[in-house]
Amino acid sequence: MPSKPARRSFIAAHPAFAGGQDTPRAFLERCLEQIDAREADVLAFVETAIPAARSAADAATVRWRENRQLSSVDGMPVGVKDVIETADMATGKGSPLFTGWRSGWDSASVMALREAGALILGKTVTTEFAASVPGPTRNPHDLARTPGGSSSGSAAGVAAGFISAGLGTQVVGSIVRPSSFCGVYGFKPSLGGINRGGSHDYMSQSCQGVLAASLDDVWRTAIEIAVRAGGDPGYPGLAGPMTTPEAKKPRRLVFLETPGWGAVSAPLKAAFEGSLARLRASGIEIVGRVNASEVADVEAALGDALKVTRDINGRESIWPLNIYAERDASKLSPQMRDRLTESQAMTPDEYRQSLARRAQIRALYARLASGADGCIALSATGAAPLGLSSTGDPSFAAPGSLLGVPALSLPLLSEGGLPVGVQLLGFEQKDADLFAIAGFVEQILG
Amino acid sequence: MPSKPARRSFIAAHPAFAGGQDTPRAFLERCLEQIDAREADVLAFVETAIPAARSAADAATVRWRENRQLSSVDGMPVGVKDVIETADMATGKGSPLFTGWRSGWDSASVMALREAGALILGKTVTTEFAASVPGPTRNPHDLARTPGGSSSGSAAGVAAGFISAGLGTQVVGSIVRPSSFCGVYGFKPSLGGINRGGSHDYMSQSCQGVLAASLDDVWRTAIEIAVRAGGDPGYPGLAGPMTTPEAKKPRRLVFLETPGWGAVSAPLKAAFEGSLARLRASGIEIVGRVNASEVADVEAALGDALKVTRDINGRESIWPLNIYAERDASKLSPQMRDRLTESQAMTPDEYRQSLARRAQIRALYARLASGADGCIALSATGAAPLGLSSTGDPSFAAPGSLLGVPALSLPLLSEGGLPVGVQLLGFEQKDADLFAIAGFVEQILG
Repeated sequence: MPSKPARRSFIAAHPAFAGGQDTPRAFLERCLEQIDAREADVLAFVETAIPAARSAADAATVRWRENRQLSSVDGMPVGVKDVIETADMATGKGSPLFTGWRSGWDSASVMALREAGALILGKTVTTEFAASVPGPTRNPHDLARTPGGSSSGSAAGVAAGFISAGLGTQVVGSIVRPSSFCGVYGFKPSLGGINRGGSHDYMSQSCQGVLAASLDDVWRTAIEIAVRAGGDPGYPGLAGPMTTPEAKKPRRLVFLETPGWGAVSAPLKAAFEGSLARLRASGIEIVGRVNASEVADVEAALGDALKVTRDINGRESIWPLNIYAERDASKLSPQMRDRLTESQAMTPDEYRQSLARRAQIRALYARLASGADGCIALSATGAAPLGLSSTGDPSFAAPGSLLGVPALSLPLLSEGGLPVGVQLLGFEQKDADLFAIAGFVEQILG
Repeated sequence: MPSKPARRSFIAAHPAFAGGQDTPRAFLERCLEQIDAREADVLAFVETAIPAARSAADAATVRWRENRQLSSVDGMPVGVKDVIETADMATGKGSPLFTGWRSGWDSASVMALREAGALILGKTVTTEFAASVPGPTRNPHDLARTPGGSSSGSAAGVAAGFISAGLGTQVVGSIVRPSSFCGVYGFKPSLGGINRGGSHDYMSQSCQGVLAASLDDVWRTAIEIAVRAGGDPGYPGLAGPMTTPEAKKPRRLVFLETPGWGAVSAPLKAAFEGSLARLRASGIEIVGRVNASEVADVEAALGDALKVTRDINGRESIWPLNIYAERDASKLSPQMRDRLTESQAMTPDEYRQSLARRAQIRALYARLASGADGCIALSATGAAPLGLSSTGDPSFAAPGSLLGVPALSLPLLSEGGLPVGVQLLGFEQKDADLFAIAGFVEQILG
């Protein structure tokens, strides 16, 4: 069992494609070899489309040879979380109610990826309806551990080198947490950054994002989608350069403990504080709750992040959960049935109060933008926990979801030899700026 | 051909249900008789579910007899626009690409209606993808005329007395215009007022609403849906009393000409101005562009309403139109194919500029709230035009869509013996207040 990640960056292979030493088809075959070797253990995929991917890789190979590639992800092997529709594969949503269900159409993001030449290699395992009940996927770094969720298969597939990038979705912790546990790069854009059309992830905090092998693979994949499919209707959508924003040293970062800090082990706290010290040594000012009252206000407000998120998501899930339960409640997990019962007890006015509370917390956070370039936090309370029955603690990921701001998890720390992410949080619509900061942070800590 | 509307209010039958002189089953049978008599001419339905409606009507009849009805719409015959999913009927979206397509699940609104006891009597004709290319429906007031669109079948079905209420959707003029042409009550709520889950109407101005036989039928249907299914995720959702808000005289109304005014005939202008005079005589102050500069600012800005709406909707339709075109472009109308080509030429930045312009216009309109209780306008440039190849001019309906504010069309005027609506526009989230005004306006003008 390799403890080193086997991430496979497609963008890093660009020069070899251009120079003729490598091809997208050969790149794909290396992914397929890895799948042959490890998928039986990792279980990242629900379904694959290998013949179609090989044809698409051959077409991309010709385009690269003739220097007329469609985009920077032309030929990139990509996995698609199984709540996102694909024309050629089923969309099972991690639920026995939908096993084998086919919409027959591509989601907006998959449409964009195909237009950009990417290979839709397979559907990746999701928890039940992208919520909390896990699928079969195991953590490639230790098969006895959860990969995190809900974007479990995309995270594990990238970590295992099956794919260069995977589409994910996040409404609480579903991109940042599995990215942290699996040691991959994970990006949840600003709310509405990537068009969710055709993704079964309906909540007001829901966001589609990318998990990938490097910062470059994340950005390139995300921006190639956004320029073709846009953001959610009514949102400006992810904006920025077609190449990864150049690394730029931030002047000041806010260290956010978040409600998760109390659950972090002393060694991991020390490692994270060591990272902060190295960033300070590079000339970045780092402020926290102890030396900035507006940060303390945000930290206090984030104490409500999980509860407010849970209340909002609950009420927003009554449909469709209720019609699923009416059809066959025995095919919903007990957790999902309990969730539905709880949510149905909530009144419209309680929901409106939760929305108002979320708006308050967002306003408090937005004030930080005048004095800082972004925030830095852990991505999870520790390494992936043992066992496959829970996807782990989302305390560190929930704030970014609640706030609707861009969040990036970088695989820069470890605990007990297992990966842990450093999380950067930005400000609304400033996703490209966050990548520039991340480039610098990675130079210092990587 | 009856020129008098044959609207059939379910709420008006409440006392007879309660007193035992009438039953929901008998009410349904009268609807079915009318369908037998006129549906072959009107063509309001794509599909009906009559046996299921009869069973549901029998169950409602028992509940009314035992005074344990589920809601005020328990037993109400309702039509569902054919872009909104129903478990027991296909959802054809007005396109040969989707004829007979079944999702197998109820939309959020249909789920709510069934929980409230309403009878889902059939799917009503929509234009192609709820845009501009008409279906076969004819105007019940004159079969040679369009019923308007895109909620064509719901409007015609209510006008013909087939159903008491129909679900509709509006992104430009799709509820207000057909309500005006067919002489029914139409309500487009504040943006996000009714949960669009399971409705194939994805745009940022898209709104689900209700067309019905009376103001009571509209409000009761809408609020019974909203309390069960909520609004769109992240929106407070339609709020107000479970009974129709009591009529209340507004202090001041703004007369909005809108860009449509120039196309109105002199007699209709005179009739509308006569209505304004009667409202003034009742003690309501009415201001317009000539005597209030903030109104003039709004009128000037609304000159862009159709263009901004068209640009935003265009870019927001690239997905899914593009995947439809790739599958089989011959099954899209030429208009839709042209639309897609135009939309694909728009850049993300042009889209963002249109969003910014919309936000500006919304801010200008919102300033009116400090001095007025609502706005009054025509619902259409005139009576339904002759011919079935166009659904008519949306100039009067587009402003409410662009603004995201509640809009109500009341069948209070006529031109050449055919119905024309008076439109009331309110302020965001003040839908119940708009109904109170409408109650008063109807008392004066009805």
